[in-house]
Amino acid sequence: MTKQMLLNAFDMNTVGHIQHGMWRHPRDESHRFGELSYWTGLARTLERGLFDGLFLADVLGVYDVYGGGPEAAIRNAVQVPLNDPMLLIPAMASVTQHLGFGVTCTTTYEPPFLFARRMSTLDALTRGRIGWNIVTGYLDSAARAMGLAVQVPHDERYDWADDYLDTVYRLWNASWDDDAVVMDRASGVFADPARIRRVQGVGRYAMDAMHLCAPTPQRTPLLYQAGASTRGRQFAAQHAECVFLNGTSKPQVATLVADLRAQALHPLKVFVGATVVVAASDSEAAEKFADYRHYASVEGALAHFSASTGIDFAKLDMDAPIPSAPGQSNQSNVEAVTTRAAQVWTKRRLIDSFILGSRQPPIVGGPQTVADALIAWMTEADVDGFNLSRTVMPECLEDFVNLVVPVLQERGVFKTEYTEGPLRQKLFGHPRLHPDHRGALRVS
Amino acid sequence: MTKQMLLNAFDMNTVGHIQHGMWRHPRDESHRFGELSYWTGLARTLERGLFDGLFLADVLGVYDVYGGGPEAAIRNAVQVPLNDPMLLIPAMASVTQHLGFGVTCTTTYEPPFLFARRMSTLDALTRGRIGWNIVTGYLDSAARAMGLAVQVPHDERYDWADDYLDTVYRLWNASWDDDAVVMDRASGVFADPARIRRVQGVGRYAMDAMHLCAPTPQRTPLLYQAGASTRGRQFAAQHAECVFLNGTSKPQVATLVADLRAQALHPLKVFVGATVVVAASDSEAAEKFADYRHYASVEGALAHFSASTGIDFAKLDMDAPIPSAPGQSNQSNVEAVTTRAAQVWTKRRLIDSFILGSRQPPIVGGPQTVADALIAWMTEADVDGFNLSRTVMPECLEDFVNLVVPVLQERGVFKTEYTEGPLRQKLFGHPRLHPDHRGALRVS
Repeated sequence: MTKQMLLNAFDMNTVGHIQHGMWRHPRDESHRFGELSYWTGLARTLERGLFDGLFLADVLGVYDVYGGGPEAAIRNAVQVPLNDPMLLIPAMASVTQHLGFGVTCTTTYEPPFLFARRMSTLDALTRGRIGWNIVTGYLDSAARAMGLAVQVPHDERYDWADDYLDTVYRLWNASWDDDAVVMDRASGVFADPARIRRVQGVGRYAMDAMHLCAPTPQRTPLLYQAGASTRGRQFAAQHAECVFLNGTSKPQVATLVADLRAQALHPLKVFVGATVVVAASDSEAAEKFADYRHYASVEGALAHFSASTGIDFAKLDMDAPIPSAPGQSNQSNVEAVTTRAAQVWTKRRLIDSFILGSRQPPIVGGPQTVADALIAWMTEADVDGFNLSRTVMPECLEDFVNLVVPVLQERGVFKTEYTEGPLRQKLFGHPRLHPDHRGALRVS
Repeated sequence: MTKQMLLNAFDMNTVGHIQHGMWRHPRDESHRFGELSYWTGLARTLERGLFDGLFLADVLGVYDVYGGGPEAAIRNAVQVPLNDPMLLIPAMASVTQHLGFGVTCTTTYEPPFLFARRMSTLDALTRGRIGWNIVTGYLDSAARAMGLAVQVPHDERYDWADDYLDTVYRLWNASWDDDAVVMDRASGVFADPARIRRVQGVGRYAMDAMHLCAPTPQRTPLLYQAGASTRGRQFAAQHAECVFLNGTSKPQVATLVADLRAQALHPLKVFVGATVVVAASDSEAAEKFADYRHYASVEGALAHFSASTGIDFAKLDMDAPIPSAPGQSNQSNVEAVTTRAAQVWTKRRLIDSFILGSRQPPIVGGPQTVADALIAWMTEADVDGFNLSRTVMPECLEDFVNLVVPVLQERGVFKTEYTEGPLRQKLFGHPRLHPDHRGALRVS
């Protein structure tokens, strides 16, 4: 059988996520992000389109590098206001049966005992449809919000994250035996104490406790990771089951994918970011794209990109070469900028690359054109699927489900029904971590 | 108009909450606590009965005092397994319009910046139906789970909590002006940076950040508090809008209520814990009670009470006087035990008081009898309403809604429809904190 495409919607509990300025479009409803019905409607659309998951991004601070303050981000609704992503999931799970949910949570700031219980609770309530996008945080504003003067350095954050993961693995996988809950009404024994034990935290996450939650369908949430730095890829090889990459060049992404697959100690699914503008025909799609583009915000895109790179683009001349970034910023994006700096990138060229309000160029066309483009990514870059960014909501996802999904199915690259079982079962064929995975602890 | 009775269901994301052993009853469904449909069904029942709220308890550790370990708690499902309570709320909110949700979260272990965002997210998603039961934690097992060797001492935890509250008040009330979100599509301004500012944390909760969430209907969740110690009552006078008490003697509770109302700097609603076993007639209720009582667990009740008091009752002779408790345990219960010790309480007398699996004696009777008993509490102890503990689920709440609520309405002490607006509006007539409240910060 032809390799099957995986599809996640890529979203955030906010107004402007990736393509900035789209909230200004008269049909856009992203300002409804605080309403439950907005999210339950989205979940129903995605499940109708047999999407594998909804991937929810998050950050814990405001983008305040551009112009030396948060003003541009606030004006343009660039990921602010920003609500908690985890709390959307129970409502969406209650109106769906199969859709997965990948939620971004940071190892640097969430206490592991409390976090492990939240994820187990979600895994129970969703009947095994939870994924975790592991991040370590990269904003100075988040560090200050958490009471730190400055951020923990990049590579050290990943060292902490290794300890954090090893701690939550123990809570999820080594504290309760699968058969600990016996629920014997006659004898009055609900769970057998001999099959439950305390576990100890690792490294800086010293703790001593039994997990409070009984085993859930997946035990460990499906593990996503998106760090593209050298240390981030090393971390991904140890922990990630799914990797999320961004890139505009298929050969460059193919090289990165090959490196990730070679390093990984267990099977890996790779998702690449994509933005699609689709309509019934290529010409109608071009019209829709021109309409959307009218609302794109350069200031919003600059505010976002400045925070990602640590470079204040408000200070730069339009035609001066882009300097290298300071050390505290998001490493993967720093590397990207540095590469481009060697090609004499300028602020003017950067702004020209902000097509719909971000540096991610959209795939624009009728259903066949879009299907061709997506299939080419899978073939040429060896990715398994896509995290689809939103433009005008919810019509961009309705368009995709109505127009692109049927063509992908005709081409034989997309499922026509869901597989039963938890999210990991659907993607990898087994509900729990692969036995070779670092977190697949054996209970003594 | 006669004073109107307030009603909360008192529950927990677990099998056994207060009346231990009830899970053994053949009709009990509390083992379904990991299923969304269990909770959405409960929420619909409560809203049908015009309940004001669902109050969700929580602890962050296991009860391991009795017998020197968690075995008795685990066997009897005494608040273990225990899932996160907050994550139940979005699903229940999506199937209701008016029901409030009070959720227990501890100031000692949740980082304030992350917690404030979670509560704002819930207040948005529920359209202002969120309450917070402020606790400081009292279990050594929770302290160890959070990486501490021992607990922070009782009164010091309340000092920390004062700083914590003052920090989250700033995030909720002083960071964004009411009119900060302008959403002007024409000018491209979503929010006005001049109407948003960073706030600073207080005391040990040093931080510097703008709140990430735009103003929500209540801004500050409705504030519940349940500490009955001297320091706890002092804290309640400063912060709590609703107080939750337990007590079996109306005159003693009346004294406590008078003290609380005298100390409080703002209007206060007082809820007392109650357990009701109701049927169509007094005699049928007596039969039902006898049936339920058959399943009550003495070991479960001892495991819970040992943890509450810090006394290992497994070590005590049946007829020896109960000693005073060590210092690390739940202060309010310690005081209760000490009082009783003066009356020469023994383990045997304690066990005799575990009528349905806890020390809370049930109100048993037909609808008129139950209504009489509840109204007597309101009249004689000056409480505003009740946190109703569960017995056999969900039938105990269905019985209450079907049988007791209509009688309370006939008596003119219970509403026949909900008031519109947020939870605080329904209870106090205004959606935001009272202007005299310590947290009602004025934006400069």
